[in-house]
Amino acid sequence: MPRGPVIALSGGVGGAKLALGLSHLDLHQNLLVVANVGDDFEHLGLTICPDLDTVTYTLAGLSDQSKGWGRADEGWRFMAALQQLGGESWFNLGDGDLALHVLRTGALAAGENLTAVTRAVSRHLGITARVLPMSDDPVRTMIQTTDGALAFQHYFVRDRCEPVVTGFVFDGIAAARPQPGFMAALADPDLRAIIITPSNPFVSIDPILSLPGVRDAVRAAPAPVIAVSPIVAGRAIKGPAAKMMAELGMPSTALAVAQHYGDLLDGFVLDHGDQDQADAVAALGVRPMVTKTVMESLEDRVGLARDVLALAQELGA
Amino acid sequence: MPRGPVIALSGGVGGAKLALGLSHLDLHQNLLVVANVGDDFEHLGLTICPDLDTVTYTLAGLSDQSKGWGRADEGWRFMAALQQLGGESWFNLGDGDLALHVLRTGALAAGENLTAVTRAVSRHLGITARVLPMSDDPVRTMIQTTDGALAFQHYFVRDRCEPVVTGFVFDGIAAARPQPGFMAALADPDLRAIIITPSNPFVSIDPILSLPGVRDAVRAAPAPVIAVSPIVAGRAIKGPAAKMMAELGMPSTALAVAQHYGDLLDGFVLDHGDQDQADAVAALGVRPMVTKTVMESLEDRVGLARDVLALAQELGA
Repeated sequence: MPRGPVIALSGGVGGAKLALGLSHLDLHQNLLVVANVGDDFEHLGLTICPDLDTVTYTLAGLSDQSKGWGRADEGWRFMAALQQLGGESWFNLGDGDLALHVLRTGALAAGENLTAVTRAVSRHLGITARVLPMSDDPVRTMIQTTDGALAFQHYFVRDRCEPVVTGFVFDGIAAARPQPGFMAALADPDLRAIIITPSNPFVSIDPILSLPGVRDAVRAAPAPVIAVSPIVAGRAIKGPAAKMMAELGMPSTALAVAQHYGDLLDGFVLDHGDQDQADAVAALGVRPMVTKTVMESLEDRVGLARDVLALAQELGA
Repeated sequence: MPRGPVIALSGGVGGAKLALGLSHLDLHQNLLVVANVGDDFEHLGLTICPDLDTVTYTLAGLSDQSKGWGRADEGWRFMAALQQLGGESWFNLGDGDLALHVLRTGALAAGENLTAVTRAVSRHLGITARVLPMSDDPVRTMIQTTDGALAFQHYFVRDRCEPVVTGFVFDGIAAARPQPGFMAALADPDLRAIIITPSNPFVSIDPILSLPGVRDAVRAAPAPVIAVSPIVAGRAIKGPAAKMMAELGMPSTALAVAQHYGDLLDGFVLDHGDQDQADAVAALGVRPMVTKTVMESLEDRVGLARDVLALAQELGA
């Protein structure tokens, strides 16, 4: 297997868990975690990047394991004071977490790009993997619902994913340039694997794949493309993926996720609970691998990362 | 005595203490606390207004009495995370305090003026007095020192008032318009008193008096002008006033403060410890009042406020 880069496309929690597993495999700078920025939003004058930050906090060992977002040992005095002052309080921002948002907003206003800010943050937190925003240009996911279009965080946090989803629009996507290091790695002849982590296909992964040139570059890349199903036994481990699939008229199954990614895939990783779908995945021309995909412990994360890389090695041989 | 407005010109701690005393005298909306904005600065992309906020927190009963700034029962997770991320950490921002800076910065960016933001904050915190910034336009105090010019907070916080002061420049003052409600109150025929609180004459009060038209309006106002000495027994109760006076070649005395304000004053309030300077104050044509000016308890604050209003009544009669 070539000693080149491994690319992991990631949303928030599920992607960050697998990225953490991968970061334990001595890939160092050869691990590129490319995070969705479609969830990013401007709130209270701050630029907030939930997926990027979940990846960052997770890789830095600072994440709150039970909540799945934000920092562990967090305080909430800011939110209490904000409410007291009549500010918008539907989106929780922890006291420690705020430092990242304030620093980033200031740096962006001073003309730095998101890549540079993210790199500086990673360096200060001792992260050896390369965490990259999918783009330095703003892309904002709009959720089309039967109640009208909603900005992602309004749908996701404020309205608790309650509206019925009919589709997705990635505002700004046509003008957004994919992050250059990401594109360079996709074209690297030593590329080892492109891993689509178990994040939401529609709102975490599709924005990355929809950037101009990315889908073609993924297809043309010399390395196998492997997705890990975010759906296990008909349910999403976290978040609204299964609910969205039902509302979009798709079965809420791992197989449907494989079908969604279609001919982009070389391999697909299903949980033991979905073993019965492996043949149908194979019938798509995609190599199935059945293993434990539910990541409860650090061991689970590292184990799944190892399994995925082993499948990549097999497919790349 | 007319039942019209009372104006208190204020910097941070000392001014806020007397303002709190005044706020206990049933003046309600007739109490205008006009706060210096020369200490304001942009830090980490946030607009921070230390004097205005000290007045606000003090009148709302939220201030930290021991520190003299910020909120009581404050948390410091933001600062810890900021340091971890390599951010500028010489200026302490409490977790709860941040809510005010973030809200204000967002509102200003959205086109609101500082008066409107301050009014909304006062309303949410149940403050009945009218807290006004001296101007909605930016004025930034520069401290001229033997080491060169320093932005106020760099001098005051970062460099702990160590550089030797040679003078002061109020950047933006010529173009700054005094807050309209302040000017209207100065011209109110029922105005009861203009109180120069025991704040730093050079960097808290002089910026207010240096706004175009203010010194003339104070002179022309129908009410007596009374200053309370921030210097007691040769020392400043808080802050660098006495050190500045020495560096500027003035004696660090209450009398020198009275001389500094000059013919603007009708009355001057000295502490018992400076009783021996009362005659010299009187020789300036200014009515001296000797009382307890050191405000340790709430009772002290209310007592001094009562004394000052009594002197105003006497002088206005």
